[in-house]
Amino acid sequence: MNQSSISDQEPVSMQGAYCPLPLPHHEQIVIGHGSGGKMTHDLVRTVFQGRLNNSFLDGNDGAVLPIQDPDHEIVVSVDAHVVSPLFFPGGDIGRLAISGTVNDIAVMGAIPKHIMAGFILEEGFRIETLIKIIDTMSATAQEAQVLVVAGDTKVVEKGKCDGIYITTSGVGVRKKELLIGGQYVKPGDAIILSGSIGDHGIAVLQARGELGFESQIVSDVAPLNDMIQKALDAGCMEGGNAIHAMRDPTRGGVATTLSEIAQQSHTGILLDEKTIPISESVQSICEMLGFDPLYVANEGKCLFFVDQRKCQNVLGILREDPHGNNAQIIGKVTAENPGMVLLKTILGSTRLLEMLSGELLPRIC
Amino acid sequence: MNQSSISDQEPVSMQGAYCPLPLPHHEQIVIGHGSGGKMTHDLVRTVFQGRLNNSFLDGNDGAVLPIQDPDHEIVVSVDAHVVSPLFFPGGDIGRLAISGTVNDIAVMGAIPKHIMAGFILEEGFRIETLIKIIDTMSATAQEAQVLVVAGDTKVVEKGKCDGIYITTSGVGVRKKELLIGGQYVKPGDAIILSGSIGDHGIAVLQARGELGFESQIVSDVAPLNDMIQKALDAGCMEGGNAIHAMRDPTRGGVATTLSEIAQQSHTGILLDEKTIPISESVQSICEMLGFDPLYVANEGKCLFFVDQRKCQNVLGILREDPHGNNAQIIGKVTAENPGMVLLKTILGSTRLLEMLSGELLPRIC
Repeated sequence: MNQSSISDQEPVSMQGAYCPLPLPHHEQIVIGHGSGGKMTHDLVRTVFQGRLNNSFLDGNDGAVLPIQDPDHEIVVSVDAHVVSPLFFPGGDIGRLAISGTVNDIAVMGAIPKHIMAGFILEEGFRIETLIKIIDTMSATAQEAQVLVVAGDTKVVEKGKCDGIYITTSGVGVRKKELLIGGQYVKPGDAIILSGSIGDHGIAVLQARGELGFESQIVSDVAPLNDMIQKALDAGCMEGGNAIHAMRDPTRGGVATTLSEIAQQSHTGILLDEKTIPISESVQSICEMLGFDPLYVANEGKCLFFVDQRKCQNVLGILREDPHGNNAQIIGKVTAENPGMVLLKTILGSTRLLEMLSGELLPRIC
Repeated sequence: MNQSSISDQEPVSMQGAYCPLPLPHHEQIVIGHGSGGKMTHDLVRTVFQGRLNNSFLDGNDGAVLPIQDPDHEIVVSVDAHVVSPLFFPGGDIGRLAISGTVNDIAVMGAIPKHIMAGFILEEGFRIETLIKIIDTMSATAQEAQVLVVAGDTKVVEKGKCDGIYITTSGVGVRKKELLIGGQYVKPGDAIILSGSIGDHGIAVLQARGELGFESQIVSDVAPLNDMIQKALDAGCMEGGNAIHAMRDPTRGGVATTLSEIAQQSHTGILLDEKTIPISESVQSICEMLGFDPLYVANEGKCLFFVDQRKCQNVLGILREDPHGNNAQIIGKVTAENPGMVLLKTILGSTRLLEMLSGELLPRIC
């Protein structure tokens, strides 16, 4: 990694004019730029946000677009999917491509409606495999009650892709009065996690044959929009919704997602380790591999930031849903330590959780 | 190419049930599946459309989505961009990624508003190059008056991508009374082409160093939404718009695009070769290479299907625009020969133009 020769201070010449845009710390893309952690954030901030600058790029999972309809807004989102291997216990790249984008729209408080999919295929990729993936996309779209309304297919030469990459965009509709986003998180909010952590990351690792043994762990990849809609209904209260923000902790895991929210809302986050749901098998595999499960990717989990007064209602509703029956209150939002995520460990000590730095598991989604 | 072992007749087992979906003629993806021609069509029809079946996937360049607003509809589109090389005379993958999606939305009769972009980056890709591309995207978005409102970045290992692939989706807004699409093309319509053909394809070929000599040909890649909007204004007439359909003839060229329209509208198309604008240099390079320029990709051209009564108005307006000053009426729509495109050649003979079969120039966009 070359971290030296481009500095953060030097102004950059852009199309002839000198603009004081921040500059990245690297000269080349490294695997960590895809981690979803600190390096991804730096890349997005220094390369993308400044240059494509507009108020829609506000750090949430999607963008809210105004439409003429006075009561509704359009919510859009995009996700590129490069998971390896293409098939893993509990899902495949097709289920992932639909679920990932559906969930990004749903955590914005919107009802996902339509999906557009761009396919990049490698010469020699088996049509039979492609059909299997499209069938899973179709079944998952049906499960999520969304339609795939537009698509595009490109083919590249053998060795210029890894079988198939799928980029999905989504469109959803949101009621205008719903103020949901990282910026609305408030001190006092309870943090609910909808279920156990790390299943997706470990399931993919296992499918790569990198564990060296068999486990029973299955990815949690699933569209959560139905569960999220029920939670929003349960969160209804005078003066708005008790759910101030939602986020699906994918790449970078729960720790990175909470760190993003803490920074976005200028609040602190205090977690209670003993309440964080995790399966015994994920726990023990993480211990063996030296992974912190708080940084392992999930694809069927959601974090809710909920007004204390309504958090038991929301928790109760989540636990009735098949995707939420392990839901737990795992911590709270504080006025102290703004921008920081602190973990009260089982041993009683307090640990600072930073964003994932570098890459834990490349091509997990 | 293995064309034998999967047949069109045999029913396919899909998730346990027997469904009579059409089956592709290949077992593996071949480069021709990305051609935009007949093979791409077969793949889309046999693998994608049947399985993701819904009425929005109707063969136009984008999907029209209903919204609550009684006067407007949302139009969406998606395009994956894998052009090689990334930089070519007249543009780069960034300008292409914005223009391609903007044009797909614009030819649906909508005003493009928002773009979402998914980036797949290869480990080792130079950040400096990435910044150059993002800057072009930003400048092109400004030129087209659209905002890039959401993005996603994934990184794959060295050798699993060719530097950078960009998938863009777009959202536009269209007035509801506007009935524009291939299905509205009628016998008697004039066909206007906004300028000379083949420039993009030949410019990319030249950038690959495959010509063996230097030429002055520059890609036409450009966002056409402003010109298209002016044409729509000029096409206003009692009982609707005189422009019944528009299409940008990219992969597969003018011939493939017209063939799609002929099939979609069940009309015939009769072209007059001597009216088709083409630069001398593109013409002579195509002759040398044995290419038919009618099949070479364009990225800044538009085909208009216009009611005879207004076609001179539309033509006049196009010629005032920098992207349309070579506009020509190149043919007409007929009731005879439905589904077929016929070319009256300069020599006076008549030639049937079919969809591009196989691949002419891979990774042209």
